Amino acid sequence: MKTHREEIWLEIPDRRGFRNITPEIERALAKSGIREGLCLVNSMHITSSVFVNDDERGLHADLEKWLERLAPHEPVSGWQHNRTGEDNADAHLKREVLGRGVVVAVTGGKLDFGTWEQIFYGEFDGRRRKRVLVKIIGE
Amino acid sequence: MKTHREEIWLEIPDRRGFRNITPEIERALAKSGIREGLCLVNSMHITSSVFVNDDERGLHADLEKWLERLAPHEPVSGWQHNRTGEDNADAHLKREVLGRGVVVAVTGGKLDFGTWEQIFYGEFDGRRRKRVLVKIIGE
Amino acid sequence: MKTHREEIWLEIPDRRGFRNITPEIERALAKSGIREGLCLVNSMHITSSVFVNDDERGLHADLEKWLERLAPHEPVSGWQHNRTGEDNADAHLKREVLGRGVVVAVTGGKLDFGTWEQIFYGEFDGRRRKRVLVKIIGE
Repeated sequence: MKTHREEIWLEIPDRRGFRNITPEIERALAKSGIREGLCLVNSMHITSSVFVNDDERGLHADLEKWLERLAPHEPVSGWQHNRTGEDNADAHLKREVLGRGVVVAVTGGKLDFGTWEQIFYGEFDGRRRKRVLVKIIGE
Repeated sequence: MKTHREEIWLEIPDRRGFRNITPEIERALAKSGIREGLCLVNSMHITSSVFVNDDERGLHADLEKWLERLAPHEPVSGWQHNRTGEDNADAHLKREVLGRGVVVAVTGGKLDFGTWEQIFYGEFDGRRRKRVLVKIIGE
Repeated sequence: MKTHREEIWLEIPDRRGFRNITPEIERALAKSGIREGLCLVNSMHITSSVFVNDDERGLHADLEKWLERLAPHEPVSGWQHNRTGEDNADAHLKREVLGRGVVVAVTGGKLDFGTWEQIFYGEFDGRRRKRVLVKIIGE
């Protein structure tokens, strides 16, 4: 069995935003030399997500508005967590909707994806450097 | 280490619907000959889900109504994604609530499940053939 | 390849509640002797979740209130599933938001976590003994 571990650092300039990280994951997989196995990709932070969806700008705008409706940032004082001095309670909740991460099959040395699947980092409390973990196991 | 890969094709006749795919996953596991490991099951589409819950008709009706309330199909023009000519923005969002897929433990050659756990395919933009990926690794 | 399997039993005294189970998972990992691999942790019940977030009391209160707003317990008769004699339809839905379980990377014999990541059991239909499955594969 082989394993490969890598951190991907990124900084979203706004509080919220999405970034396609598929190319970085493909590079990590190529480096690993693994041809059959599983690839775990997860945010190492609890106010952001890694998820698989469509690379379409309108959809990302919809996702952003929809999550803001489900778990609004304002009023900041409406969430108990923010009494600790934070203002990111909504980010902890939004991240639960999209999830912490994904497990992707590796087949023939490639991410085993359907036609439109792409991996995204979803940030809900940005404007600072954050990390995504890639762990691949297989052979 | 052994790996097994399989695609399950299915077509839900309506826009939305749920189907219990546990028997198909059990057959794939039996074919694999793997007795200890992990089994990834995920939708290869970004408008449907694979998830674990109860095989109870009333619950599926509740899930359907609940997701429609959280991310309504209508008005179609209310979602930016639909300006691309699509009408399935809500399906991309609904799928985020139930998730892309599940990882199930394999123990003694069986899916290692609690009493009521069953694997479902959740469709939010159906009426065409779609694929579920099964990838099992272990020994 | 090595594998390790363990069940963690727990009982939440109220209908809903969260418990940090990171120490139990760390003990299971230590017992396994696995240094590189993947660790799956999932609820074996369909009315509870295993998820990764912050160990902060205010946040857990927010999560509880937020899930209750998204999928209210009352009116019990508002959900079709409850016509079976159950009163836990809301628990089946809440569990979909937080998810069935998580896959955590194992690196150097440790859970490969960011600074604030902790694993929680989220109960939505408690007051009885329930099980969490831990399955670790690697070497």
